[in-house]
Amino acid sequence: MNDKTNMNEDELNKRHAIKMLKKKEARKKILATKTIEKGLIIIHTGKGKGKTTAAFGIIFRALGNNMNVAIVQYVKGQWLSGERSALDKFSEQVEIYKMGEGFTWETQDRARDIMAAEAAWEKSKELINDNINKVVLLDELNIVLRYNYLNINDVLETLRNKPKDKHIIITGRNAKDELVEIADLVTNMELIKHPFRSGVKAQIGIEF
Amino acid sequence: MNDKTNMNEDELNKRHAIKMLKKKEARKKILATKTIEKGLIIIHTGKGKGKTTAAFGIIFRALGNNMNVAIVQYVKGQWLSGERSALDKFSEQVEIYKMGEGFTWETQDRARDIMAAEAAWEKSKELINDNINKVVLLDELNIVLRYNYLNINDVLETLRNKPKDKHIIITGRNAKDELVEIADLVTNMELIKHPFRSGVKAQIGIEF
Repeated sequence: MNDKTNMNEDELNKRHAIKMLKKKEARKKILATKTIEKGLIIIHTGKGKGKTTAAFGIIFRALGNNMNVAIVQYVKGQWLSGERSALDKFSEQVEIYKMGEGFTWETQDRARDIMAAEAAWEKSKELINDNINKVVLLDELNIVLRYNYLNINDVLETLRNKPKDKHIIITGRNAKDELVEIADLVTNMELIKHPFRSGVKAQIGIEF
Repeated sequence: MNDKTNMNEDELNKRHAIKMLKKKEARKKILATKTIEKGLIIIHTGKGKGKTTAAFGIIFRALGNNMNVAIVQYVKGQWLSGERSALDKFSEQVEIYKMGEGFTWETQDRARDIMAAEAAWEKSKELINDNINKVVLLDELNIVLRYNYLNINDVLETLRNKPKDKHIIITGRNAKDELVEIADLVTNMELIKHPFRSGVKAQIGIEF
């Protein structure tokens, strides 16, 4: 049955049509069961590239749909100028907050980082609960949670009680289990191959 | 050594500073070895969400850096209007091509899909080899390769001989091993949790 070698193009085409029809019907059935509309809690985690980048893809899609968005940047220096310039085109729809000097590999000042994280989280709570923004990106929040710079219970409670139609995107490695538990959509970005391994330098316009 | 319970804040801060200093130095060492500059072949694959979305994140970053980009859409109906509207803000920097009616779960017409795939690939080759675009996104190319609608050797040869400074992004499930082999950066988007599972409907502005 799996031997395609003796089939001519016509037979291959017919076979394909039947297979696709089955897929279409299966898809239709699944979609019919999906009826709840609500704002999602989305997590991008894992060691691979693309966590923040994919979040920006969602942000730009929302901007294209005329939604207002807010971004809180929990780790400094992760963005290149490209994102900033692209967001500038939608300046009326975007609010951006940086976590003070913020957590970086350079500062190594835990006490100051905790204060900055707490201030950023207070701002995040405002943005989550306002009536202006439809999507809130908490970029690299997982990192400060991992270092226990914030009270995880406060974060969980805020997310559980968020306005129903608000979408929240949280990025960063090592998402906490409790967070994954309450999330609607969790994607793990897994690194299969990385140019750093072969000596390629970080460069403008692309991921790094 | 791992007992933090008896440490005061001061001790915790000192401990943290030492740890971060070590990380910083390790990072510096790694970066120092990375000296090759070149256009990358980037693959986003896997069953999770975010393959095309992360590609759009790269596209918008490149646009923000004033680069020209080209997009070939190999599977119809995957994009929502949000991306289109957002790209419209950069219309002078973006070229977009759709693969005719294109491959969809709706058509089930293999012969027509093969012709459309071949035409889209010819266009892709032009875009890869031109002097205008710095980034070319071949969205869902993996899908048509999986169905063997294109000659994989032609694809591999074109990518191997691409202009040195050009970045190519290829998305879609089930990336072929031969493609992964020649790629510089491969990320597997793994689905951990999906709202469809809990009955949430697809909605405007977000992934689906």
